[in-house]
Amino acid sequence: MEDMSDLSAVLTPSNPILSRLTALSIPHSTYSHPLSETVDELLTNAPLTNPKECHTKNLFFKDKKHGMFLVSVASDTEVNTKELGSLLKLDGKVNLRLADEELLMEKLGVKKGCVGPLCIMNNADKDVTLVLDEKLMGVELVHSHPMRNDASVSLKPEDLMAFVKGYTEPVVLKFGEKVLGGKVPSSRPEGDKGATKPKIEKKEGGGGKGGGGNVNKKQTKKGETQLALKWSKSENFAMWYSDVIVLSEMISYYDISGCYILRPWSYKIWELIQDWFNIQIRKLGVENSYFPMFVSRDRLEKEKDHVEGFAPEVAWVTKSGDGELAAPIAVRPTSETIMYPAFADWIRSHRDLPLKLNQWSNVVRWEFKDPTPFLRTREFLWQEGHTAHASHEDSDVMVMQALDLYRRVYEELLAIPVIPGYKTEKEKFAGGHRTTTVEAYIPVSGRAIQGATSHDLGQNFGKMFDINYQDEKGETQIAWQTSWGLTTRTIGVMVMVHGDDTGLILPPRIAPLQCVIVPIVSKNFPLEKAAPYCEDILKFLEAKDIRCKLDDRSIYNPGWKYAHWEQKGVPIRIEVGPRDLENRQARLVIRFGGEKIDVGVDSLASDVEAKLEEIQNNMFTKAQEFRDDHLVQVTEWKDFVPNLELHNLVLTPWCGGEHTDWEEWVKEKSREESLANRGEGAEDARAATSVAAKTLCIPFKQPELPEGTKCIASGLPATCWVLWGRSY
Amino acid sequence: MEDMSDLSAVLTPSNPILSRLTALSIPHSTYSHPLSETVDELLTNAPLTNPKECHTKNLFFKDKKHGMFLVSVASDTEVNTKELGSLLKLDGKVNLRLADEELLMEKLGVKKGCVGPLCIMNNADKDVTLVLDEKLMGVELVHSHPMRNDASVSLKPEDLMAFVKGYTEPVVLKFGEKVLGGKVPSSRPEGDKGATKPKIEKKEGGGGKGGGGNVNKKQTKKGETQLALKWSKSENFAMWYSDVIVLSEMISYYDISGCYILRPWSYKIWELIQDWFNIQIRKLGVENSYFPMFVSRDRLEKEKDHVEGFAPEVAWVTKSGDGELAAPIAVRPTSETIMYPAFADWIRSHRDLPLKLNQWSNVVRWEFKDPTPFLRTREFLWQEGHTAHASHEDSDVMVMQALDLYRRVYEELLAIPVIPGYKTEKEKFAGGHRTTTVEAYIPVSGRAIQGATSHDLGQNFGKMFDINYQDEKGETQIAWQTSWGLTTRTIGVMVMVHGDDTGLILPPRIAPLQCVIVPIVSKNFPLEKAAPYCEDILKFLEAKDIRCKLDDRSIYNPGWKYAHWEQKGVPIRIEVGPRDLENRQARLVIRFGGEKIDVGVDSLASDVEAKLEEIQNNMFTKAQEFRDDHLVQVTEWKDFVPNLELHNLVLTPWCGGEHTDWEEWVKEKSREESLANRGEGAEDARAATSVAAKTLCIPFKQPELPEGTKCIASGLPATCWVLWGRSY
Repeated sequence: MEDMSDLSAVLTPSNPILSRLTALSIPHSTYSHPLSETVDELLTNAPLTNPKECHTKNLFFKDKKHGMFLVSVASDTEVNTKELGSLLKLDGKVNLRLADEELLMEKLGVKKGCVGPLCIMNNADKDVTLVLDEKLMGVELVHSHPMRNDASVSLKPEDLMAFVKGYTEPVVLKFGEKVLGGKVPSSRPEGDKGATKPKIEKKEGGGGKGGGGNVNKKQTKKGETQLALKWSKSENFAMWYSDVIVLSEMISYYDISGCYILRPWSYKIWELIQDWFNIQIRKLGVENSYFPMFVSRDRLEKEKDHVEGFAPEVAWVTKSGDGELAAPIAVRPTSETIMYPAFADWIRSHRDLPLKLNQWSNVVRWEFKDPTPFLRTREFLWQEGHTAHASHEDSDVMVMQALDLYRRVYEELLAIPVIPGYKTEKEKFAGGHRTTTVEAYIPVSGRAIQGATSHDLGQNFGKMFDINYQDEKGETQIAWQTSWGLTTRTIGVMVMVHGDDTGLILPPRIAPLQCVIVPIVSKNFPLEKAAPYCEDILKFLEAKDIRCKLDDRSIYNPGWKYAHWEQKGVPIRIEVGPRDLENRQARLVIRFGGEKIDVGVDSLASDVEAKLEEIQNNMFTKAQEFRDDHLVQVTEWKDFVPNLELHNLVLTPWCGGEHTDWEEWVKEKSREESLANRGEGAEDARAATSVAAKTLCIPFKQPELPEGTKCIASGLPATCWVLWGRSY
Repeated sequence: MEDMSDLSAVLTPSNPILSRLTALSIPHSTYSHPLSETVDELLTNAPLTNPKECHTKNLFFKDKKHGMFLVSVASDTEVNTKELGSLLKLDGKVNLRLADEELLMEKLGVKKGCVGPLCIMNNADKDVTLVLDEKLMGVELVHSHPMRNDASVSLKPEDLMAFVKGYTEPVVLKFGEKVLGGKVPSSRPEGDKGATKPKIEKKEGGGGKGGGGNVNKKQTKKGETQLALKWSKSENFAMWYSDVIVLSEMISYYDISGCYILRPWSYKIWELIQDWFNIQIRKLGVENSYFPMFVSRDRLEKEKDHVEGFAPEVAWVTKSGDGELAAPIAVRPTSETIMYPAFADWIRSHRDLPLKLNQWSNVVRWEFKDPTPFLRTREFLWQEGHTAHASHEDSDVMVMQALDLYRRVYEELLAIPVIPGYKTEKEKFAGGHRTTTVEAYIPVSGRAIQGATSHDLGQNFGKMFDINYQDEKGETQIAWQTSWGLTTRTIGVMVMVHGDDTGLILPPRIAPLQCVIVPIVSKNFPLEKAAPYCEDILKFLEAKDIRCKLDDRSIYNPGWKYAHWEQKGVPIRIEVGPRDLENRQARLVIRFGGEKIDVGVDSLASDVEAKLEEIQNNMFTKAQEFRDDHLVQVTEWKDFVPNLELHNLVLTPWCGGEHTDWEEWVKEKSREESLANRGEGAEDARAATSVAAKTLCIPFKQPELPEGTKCIASGLPATCWVLWGRSY
């Protein structure tokens, strides 16, 4: 079972239930609400105004003789074990008891208070019987937790049924009718193939205390922020990620799948990246502009490869008000086809070149792969640079300048090492000539992620959109173009690389707050006494343009504040107690590593400044060392999959170029071998592609390639080293 | 006729043809292309790849006996007057000649080279016969100029026919068949009611030289920027506006109606407004964030008044790729319904208040009124602030703080005076409690325009979205909310208020470039000699954070550069000639007012800095004086419409409050009286509403209202002064 939970962590960067619902195209809405450990809390926190909708109450029972039962009933249905045993027609001695938290985690992969019928998906051993309240089948929408109790997902009963039937055959029971001597309910097809019959649990459960129900045991009074993460990073990476970004107030879930709310704590990071990036591109002569987000079908479909790459994901507006539009219009998935007809208008002569534009905008790609906040969302924010040049040499310089800015965003701002290189033919941008990329590495999951790409478009779009100009000799030429984009994905990668079990750890250069001053107030050291000294410190820091805040809220105690700002990843906490005031000093507590240092107030601002730089460098160094430890050269196929299993990125000799079939071969072969290693439980649909390795890039920095080296896949002479990995 | 052209200027802030096509819901695409004075240029500049589409060639003939003919033929159809006379069955002496430019302007409202069949719309006297080439009726799309020759609009022949039939009954002829003794073509319904028969022109035409055809007479070699505006501001305000924003490189047209490209020259202005505004709202504790742009139907329709206000303009996404979505989702027209469910999640206790968020985003309102770049567009950029508070007093402070920022954007950045006040019940935000506004005045058109609004939402949304919190006593309360928005409309208002017949005049605080240095190079004063001195000046200016550029391009001469930067509205030009170098000085030429001053290089940067401030103030003062001259108090109805006709804003006593019917009465009555004043020609559909006065606001600053004063409309006792005007 440990294998399975580990596997699930690797496979599903996002919430597995939501991903699965999306993958199956099951209509559902997800929404955030305050943490609700019990049904009563839930009814208060997320009241349903429509009486035809319904929350669930969930109980996880075990019986020594008859096995385990996940019982999901309408929030107002009363369940007693006597009736349950009778309805289930359990024979002989019946002793149904609430199972303990350990068994709950083992069998359904969730923590207390987070159970819902959809969790049956996690029961890889298929040894839990799902019992559904007949009442749920009669409502319009069933609401239940998607493995976390600060969110709910609602779906139609028939869709709920369709979903769970992918994993088990549920038993539907009518509660509250006192059928003590009843029979098996008619809705349960008795001899149905694949039905999970109640059976004897073989494993010994725990002490039996506590239960799987929505029972509040610890923490969180109503209205309080939850301070501790429910999941550790190594325990379940996907759930940890979801926990961190929600609890640190970066993200809130939204009721349209794949769309998320960027709260100020994440949006400010994006603004800091924007500010830096704007300064850099201005130096390169790139100007900001804004193009419409709608594009007509004709334009979108002008470049054949391009439209093939994007068409399946395009969102179409077909109506306004109550009327049909004369022709559907697309919401931009990217803006080549929107911008380039204008380029054709503006560019007449070599004097109009280079033309270098950028825009910051939202784009929409209606993907059906698992949506993950920041990493893969249906609407996302990005910048897209688009340029036109008089020669391929000039456009090539631009491609590399843009890529180097992306490298610097990752390395210098986000403290994440990346590997720059070329994409293979198979992985390049649809409609482009050649794509360059920076590739990052996510520890724990051991996966690679594409950081950002910069495309050499050659003259492909120029030909399609008639971007011609007269050169100095008066001859007509076609312009050479580039496009390049960086998205809010950056933020997600940063969270994944640096965060820990306490929460975020933010690199100082992009931290919305670089330090927070917390006065350690008490009866003997009231705020009135602490405040003037703290405010002085604040002034010193602000004078150095350090993003800083004094947390002088009287409604929270210092301990709460420590935990709060740690979870939000603020690089330095400055504690000010009575003795600090006496000694004209303050205590710096460093989020990354936990170091504590007392510094005198006179040098405090410059000490903090230096410390922030040091933290930034240390964070990068740590990430780089870890990444380097997981970057291996492999020259024989037998070592390939084992290295993937060790969470490594794998550099191999490659026949390259036109041999694109071999790329597919490696993908297939690595998938097969990975699944074979893992055994039957892994043959989940979700696993099908994501254990496969794919090419990340052909790194610019190539190791020596001795004469006669052979491609690891084809055995043909190798022409370069290519980097492989499992990827997001 | 002068009346008519004047009227059209007042009525149609945008391109009248495009507005009319949109108003009639006729499917059409508009696109920009390089200036094309002749058909040959057009075929080069905007080649049609589909052989089933066709540009038009247009000729405007007059004949002393038979009247005037606008002949629109396919670009490759040859027209000779002999054949034309014969096809038209003109009797007696036929002497068809190309009409001169004066007559062209008088009869069709366009300049040379800009003619197209759609211009027939401007023939208010209905004395021009429209002749269409039969060939045009057989193509898929006809392309023609919408009164300007750097753009074309394409539409189906049947739609072209439907459009022109709203104004005249066209004659369709088959050219090139040598029908010297032919008959009236069958497609012309001879006795049709309203058909414009060829008739004798009563007015004497001009000298007859030149013609209405697409003949290039002056300016613009291919590939050169057009420097002079075609229209003056007083001559035709709408066309002047369109000219200015296109030629100054602020806007390019786009092929989806109501969507425009914001080029760097306008987008930078938006960025400067953003920078200033972000600093101000941060001081008020408002944080930036980003919410999804999609909203489900359920959410959008939750607040009844709100959805009624927005539903008719909502764009709906119903498809992704080739598949239908399970339910249509709306593109945000505004984000109340997107944000407030999240507010309900986040707000639990009084400690969570106030909550103050802002976002910069694009929104979509699919309007069918005339789209106008910046002023009324289907997609536009804006900021929207949304806050929640524990009391109405607190939310009211926020409403006023936001409104005052809007006042400052207009007055301090854009140098445009505004009148702050309350909207009447009839004009307030859909679903809100009370709306405040700042109202600006556009000289020349004499119209008011809503600058920006800040809404007191009361508890309406709070109740709908369950935004409850526990107060200090533990009791449940509903939050008080505000929302407030400022759009890219600001830029259009600024262009309209300050621009002149040379082009833009930009207030220094939002000018992308505040000054440009132009070396007056010549044989004796080559760039090598001028450059070091100019670069020094550049450095001095940059050291003072003045946005500045050295235009050292050798491909353009100084005269061209003067005109170029004047058209783009750069506040100060710094000329550097050989004598300036000798005397260690430079010449400042001020765009606003044209003043020229020689200043020594040592004080140059601070002189420029002071001058920029002075220009900013002078621009505001001029605009304010002009506005004040057009702001009158009126207490009797008889003076109301005459003052509108004088381009005045009118302040009147008002019974206010619940008497909303009287507001409608004034609208109707002012429309009727205005049209009556203008005579028959004005009864154009476009005129129907836009000569009516509407309430702009109840100004905060109220004149004294003597006891017993009566409402100008109802005669009931007046409770306040209200401001009226014709409006955009």
